[in-house]
Amino acid sequence: MNNRDKPLILVSNDDGIFSPGIKALAEVSDEFAEVAIIAPDRQQSAVGHAITINTPLRSRSFTIDGKYSGQAVSGTPADSVKLAHNQLLKRRPDLVVSGINHGSNAGINILYSGTVSAATEGTILGYPSIAVSCTDFSEDADLTGAKDAARRVIRYVLNHGLPRGVTLNLNVPAGPLKGIRWARQADSRYVEEFEGRVDPNNRSYYWLTGKFQLLDRDEGNDINALESGFASLTPIQYDLTSYPLLRELENVEL
Amino acid sequence: MNNRDKPLILVSNDDGIFSPGIKALAEVSDEFAEVAIIAPDRQQSAVGHAITINTPLRSRSFTIDGKYSGQAVSGTPADSVKLAHNQLLKRRPDLVVSGINHGSNAGINILYSGTVSAATEGTILGYPSIAVSCTDFSEDADLTGAKDAARRVIRYVLNHGLPRGVTLNLNVPAGPLKGIRWARQADSRYVEEFEGRVDPNNRSYYWLTGKFQLLDRDEGNDINALESGFASLTPIQYDLTSYPLLRELENVEL
Repeated sequence: MNNRDKPLILVSNDDGIFSPGIKALAEVSDEFAEVAIIAPDRQQSAVGHAITINTPLRSRSFTIDGKYSGQAVSGTPADSVKLAHNQLLKRRPDLVVSGINHGSNAGINILYSGTVSAATEGTILGYPSIAVSCTDFSEDADLTGAKDAARRVIRYVLNHGLPRGVTLNLNVPAGPLKGIRWARQADSRYVEEFEGRVDPNNRSYYWLTGKFQLLDRDEGNDINALESGFASLTPIQYDLTSYPLLRELENVEL
Repeated sequence: MNNRDKPLILVSNDDGIFSPGIKALAEVSDEFAEVAIIAPDRQQSAVGHAITINTPLRSRSFTIDGKYSGQAVSGTPADSVKLAHNQLLKRRPDLVVSGINHGSNAGINILYSGTVSAATEGTILGYPSIAVSCTDFSEDADLTGAKDAARRVIRYVLNHGLPRGVTLNLNVPAGPLKGIRWARQADSRYVEEFEGRVDPNNRSYYWLTGKFQLLDRDEGNDINALESGFASLTPIQYDLTSYPLLRELENVEL
């Protein structure tokens, strides 16, 4: 089959091109489509939706196992997807997938996640987009279930598409897949976030650390699903408007 | 009056502690409250909701014009607000304000904005929070209207509070204030985003640039308000769940 007849999937992430997770997601994507990997050239966790405006971007070619070829970008996940769309891809992708992240992007982590922002950038640019994360941080996490869940969601989106403005955010426990549950983003936050230390010159410094705290008391959120051993699948949007509060306040004169 | 009886306003931004905008916002805040400025020690535009996990943070004291004192943080806007909450403030603030940013944070810019992310971080931590931006990028922009609008919104929020989970995003044209309009986030994006160049060693590089494109055809969005000369005020939320799509899809088996 000529590549022109196959769909094209753009694979990106925030852990960089050398992470086991991006290779796993390329393998799953390869079952459906031609694969182009365009991703940061180094670890970019917790960069959120940062973009690079004060320095120029560069890209260089690479291959993974001689099988998947791509471009490593000297920027953030959102930069990588923008540059892929504007400069590096020879045709429009049918789908953008980001991951598989090593670590959960559920609850409040969605806001800090470079993995999710790469997918959100795909959505902004008009492509159906999916972020995939495994809740296990370790480099050698068992991604069997994450690959299985990604396969099901990719198949669904290639067949049915997604409405404009919506990204799917998939989180999967390590190990075999128990099932996928649709879920909302759990209300959550971090507490006790910093550990203060004193350096040899007697100056203070702080390491970000912190404990995840679930505030959400109702069923049906992504953290619930993960704690029950299921994958969570959350449709998220980049329109941040709070419509209920806008309706409540729009007649208030300021 | 004892400071203990006064409200406390935490002032942050993404342009850093030396920007004219943060001084302007400190001046307005000072009309209502004790002011603590805790902000990045340097320009951090377009960092989105990035947080710093791989290097420790430091802070150092500074004063502006001998009047406003604060702490400059070696991190992102979100880092600054987290560190203020966890380590640097002696009491809980009654309000978090971020800005005045030099440049618009309306439409899709909300996602890339460090100014907005500082305010959103305040909301996550449980404080009523407001982001303030002036649409004029220049350092010597006329912030008269932005200060006037910020004053009205700060007064409103100190008197009425805000529901948990919601941040107010205020954008104001340069010059005198014509009025404030409640508005939703405009659907918008950037096109033609990169300018490719070749360096003296014959290697390609790319500068992020691009034209803002308004996709939103309906009245009532923030870009409309600004184009009509009004300030826009948008309640935004950090729960990114698309509830309409979740309801539509939750019975789809994957």
